[in-house]
Amino acid sequence: MAEPLPDLIEELVSDAQNEDPAAVLTTLASEDDVSIATVLESLPVELRISTWEGLPRDRKIDVLVEMRSDPREILIDATPDTEWALMFADIEAESLLELMDSLPSRLMDLAFKALDEQQQAFFREATQFTDSEIGHWISHEQLALPINAKVRDALRLIRRNVPSHSDTIFLTNRSGQFSAAVKLTKVFGAPEHVPLVELTIENMPVLKVTDDTTVASLQLQRSGFASLPVVDDNNKLMGRLDVTSASELVNENYERQVMASAGMDEDEDLFSPVAKSARNRALWLGINLLTAFLASWFIGMFEGTLQQVVALAVLMPVVASMGGIAGSQTLTLIVRGLALGQVTKANFRALMMKELKVGGLNGVIWAIIIGIVASVWFSSAALGIVICLAILVNIVSAALAGVFLPVLLDKLKIDPALSGSVILTTVTDIVGFVAFLGLGTLFLL
Amino acid sequence: MAEPLPDLIEELVSDAQNEDPAAVLTTLASEDDVSIATVLESLPVELRISTWEGLPRDRKIDVLVEMRSDPREILIDATPDTEWALMFADIEAESLLELMDSLPSRLMDLAFKALDEQQQAFFREATQFTDSEIGHWISHEQLALPINAKVRDALRLIRRNVPSHSDTIFLTNRSGQFSAAVKLTKVFGAPEHVPLVELTIENMPVLKVTDDTTVASLQLQRSGFASLPVVDDNNKLMGRLDVTSASELVNENYERQVMASAGMDEDEDLFSPVAKSARNRALWLGINLLTAFLASWFIGMFEGTLQQVVALAVLMPVVASMGGIAGSQTLTLIVRGLALGQVTKANFRALMMKELKVGGLNGVIWAIIIGIVASVWFSSAALGIVICLAILVNIVSAALAGVFLPVLLDKLKIDPALSGSVILTTVTDIVGFVAFLGLGTLFLL
Repeated sequence: MAEPLPDLIEELVSDAQNEDPAAVLTTLASEDDVSIATVLESLPVELRISTWEGLPRDRKIDVLVEMRSDPREILIDATPDTEWALMFADIEAESLLELMDSLPSRLMDLAFKALDEQQQAFFREATQFTDSEIGHWISHEQLALPINAKVRDALRLIRRNVPSHSDTIFLTNRSGQFSAAVKLTKVFGAPEHVPLVELTIENMPVLKVTDDTTVASLQLQRSGFASLPVVDDNNKLMGRLDVTSASELVNENYERQVMASAGMDEDEDLFSPVAKSARNRALWLGINLLTAFLASWFIGMFEGTLQQVVALAVLMPVVASMGGIAGSQTLTLIVRGLALGQVTKANFRALMMKELKVGGLNGVIWAIIIGIVASVWFSSAALGIVICLAILVNIVSAALAGVFLPVLLDKLKIDPALSGSVILTTVTDIVGFVAFLGLGTLFLL
Repeated sequence: MAEPLPDLIEELVSDAQNEDPAAVLTTLASEDDVSIATVLESLPVELRISTWEGLPRDRKIDVLVEMRSDPREILIDATPDTEWALMFADIEAESLLELMDSLPSRLMDLAFKALDEQQQAFFREATQFTDSEIGHWISHEQLALPINAKVRDALRLIRRNVPSHSDTIFLTNRSGQFSAAVKLTKVFGAPEHVPLVELTIENMPVLKVTDDTTVASLQLQRSGFASLPVVDDNNKLMGRLDVTSASELVNENYERQVMASAGMDEDEDLFSPVAKSARNRALWLGINLLTAFLASWFIGMFEGTLQQVVALAVLMPVVASMGGIAGSQTLTLIVRGLALGQVTKANFRALMMKELKVGGLNGVIWAIIIGIVASVWFSSAALGIVICLAILVNIVSAALAGVFLPVLLDKLKIDPALSGSVILTTVTDIVGFVAFLGLGTLFLL
């Protein structure tokens, strides 16, 4: 590990101010691809482009592969076509798969022609799968031998070349179907004439090309192997998934979840151009505006009441926010449970009952506290009772919505991490305002 | 891979209803530890305990290790002391480190005594580090040889036993300091008399015991190695971090971030007892209530205005929520940047300027749209201008707060993922209400 990234970023920024970036560029070029990508993403656009131009050409594709799409596309747009022809000289199918969503079609054509025949075949094969299927992400460099091979054959294979993340040799039958795997370390201890089938691993996990990307990657992370074989529907060995790819895919999935909670995607650039960034976020603001106007419309139905009891207007945020928080707690728990496969038809009822009880208990406690505070603040016992009931109603409906909503969205194939919270707060806002102002109309006028 | 987990959970629940759980238990016991842990976490408490009791005793500690604290503690409380004595028979320091926060002290004593002398030493060593230092999580099973060893020595070592996730042999000098590492696959190709120092890896990354857990784990994930050596301040080889531990630590960190956004921790149990669950969530509701009352108090300063212009009360949620959403987008982006080490002193100013411009642009656009809608809805151009200005002020201050707040919290060593959003929405609520009602007081009365 060279110097920590924040230091490097600071040096780049300050050297740029001194107009002598050469020294820092040399330091940067000694870092690994991921670190260079991270540093580039941290730089304002102009400095990012000038730093990019100063990188050694043979690193550029590998660095681009490690970047998020938005900051990456800024560099792609800034690179002239003559440079691309040279950069693509050694490109492989795996890198092109990572870049395909960012490259304009003329560059895709250029890059595809630069692949050799086998790499072109790998590329075509991978693009038969969506990026949520593990078949899209497999690598083809692997140790594989026929099922009747002996330790001697394995040793010869290993001495030639061992691709990274190889801790096993895959054995296939004549039709290329996966049969079994042998640990490399077993091979070294064994006499040369022993058939490999005598050394195979019991219960070797096997992935299918159509397996969900995140599920398959988590399975590999847990398995303790450095890579797992990936087969097609006919059990034919198609390639393998390795731990570095798996952890990238898992981490990306988590990042997507975190960013989705604010209506952004994981490719959002720290320094994207202002217009683009504003556009990216405008949709979420717009959706939210519609839900806010909807809530306002419900409040508007009680204009007369508000005019007479202005305390209701003062306390509205309390009712809405308690429901929103209680609901989002339930929602977050259920969304995680769905992602882990822990929330199912079988335990749904039990879960709902438990969340209702938790909501009821917290509802009663906070309703009473808030009721007392409100009645003292506005010297009105009736107002205290009204807000008390409204809070109780809102927290309990929030719990119900928090359980039902994500399960429903999941059934409809809508990501509950993205749209769950905006729908939930719409529900809790409206239920809260209507309960509070409705009860106020009944009991306070 | 046996059957998918949701099926297994459903079978367990329905078999329990038929009062014949034996068959499903056999299926469950054939799964790996993580899957069993996941299934147990998905079961309502009583069924969870009865399923747990039916598991083979020699799997129980390994399954407990894979569970989250809250659901795990329910099983710990339900297990009699006589059973523990038998379960602890083969426990190792690493498992005990995972369980130490969940076990009551009498069970900790019992387990510690069951460790052999070396394991006790490992345990003591690890507990010198907090769980945010990688020294807490290292394993001690490793391939290590003196710096002057030859290929012959390496082959002898490997034939004896290769711990999982070993793709390198560590070389140490006489004082036990880490000197270099050699790839296992290099050893196999080389003649027996070659000194290992001739085969060493250039630029092998080395972790320090005091490195941050997540940073070190991410570094290993990227390195492409199956494990990395971990040294102390004097460069003494203390152990190693392997990819399975690293991915568990990284995934746990992401989960903590997701759960923190709703004020929960990652150990929250789907089926924790109602009282416990209500208590866990009450603190967050309470904090939120204080901020809601604070917002109400600010609204209360404008009671007179609200009474005269009730439309202000109707539109309050629109102003507050647009600021909240815009601010949380900036906040989420900056929190991720901080976590990745991408937000630093050097680029802070540039980031702030960019977010201000994005906020300004979205602020102007949405302020005009909302101003038009409001003036048409309430047939009042003045009201339209008031809400237009209030939205603009609120979205721009939200952008500022979204940049400053997480950086400030990070400096104060407070997790911005946990407390950022609650403070941010307090700011945007108050700024929104005061701007809207204040401008309303000035221009509409």
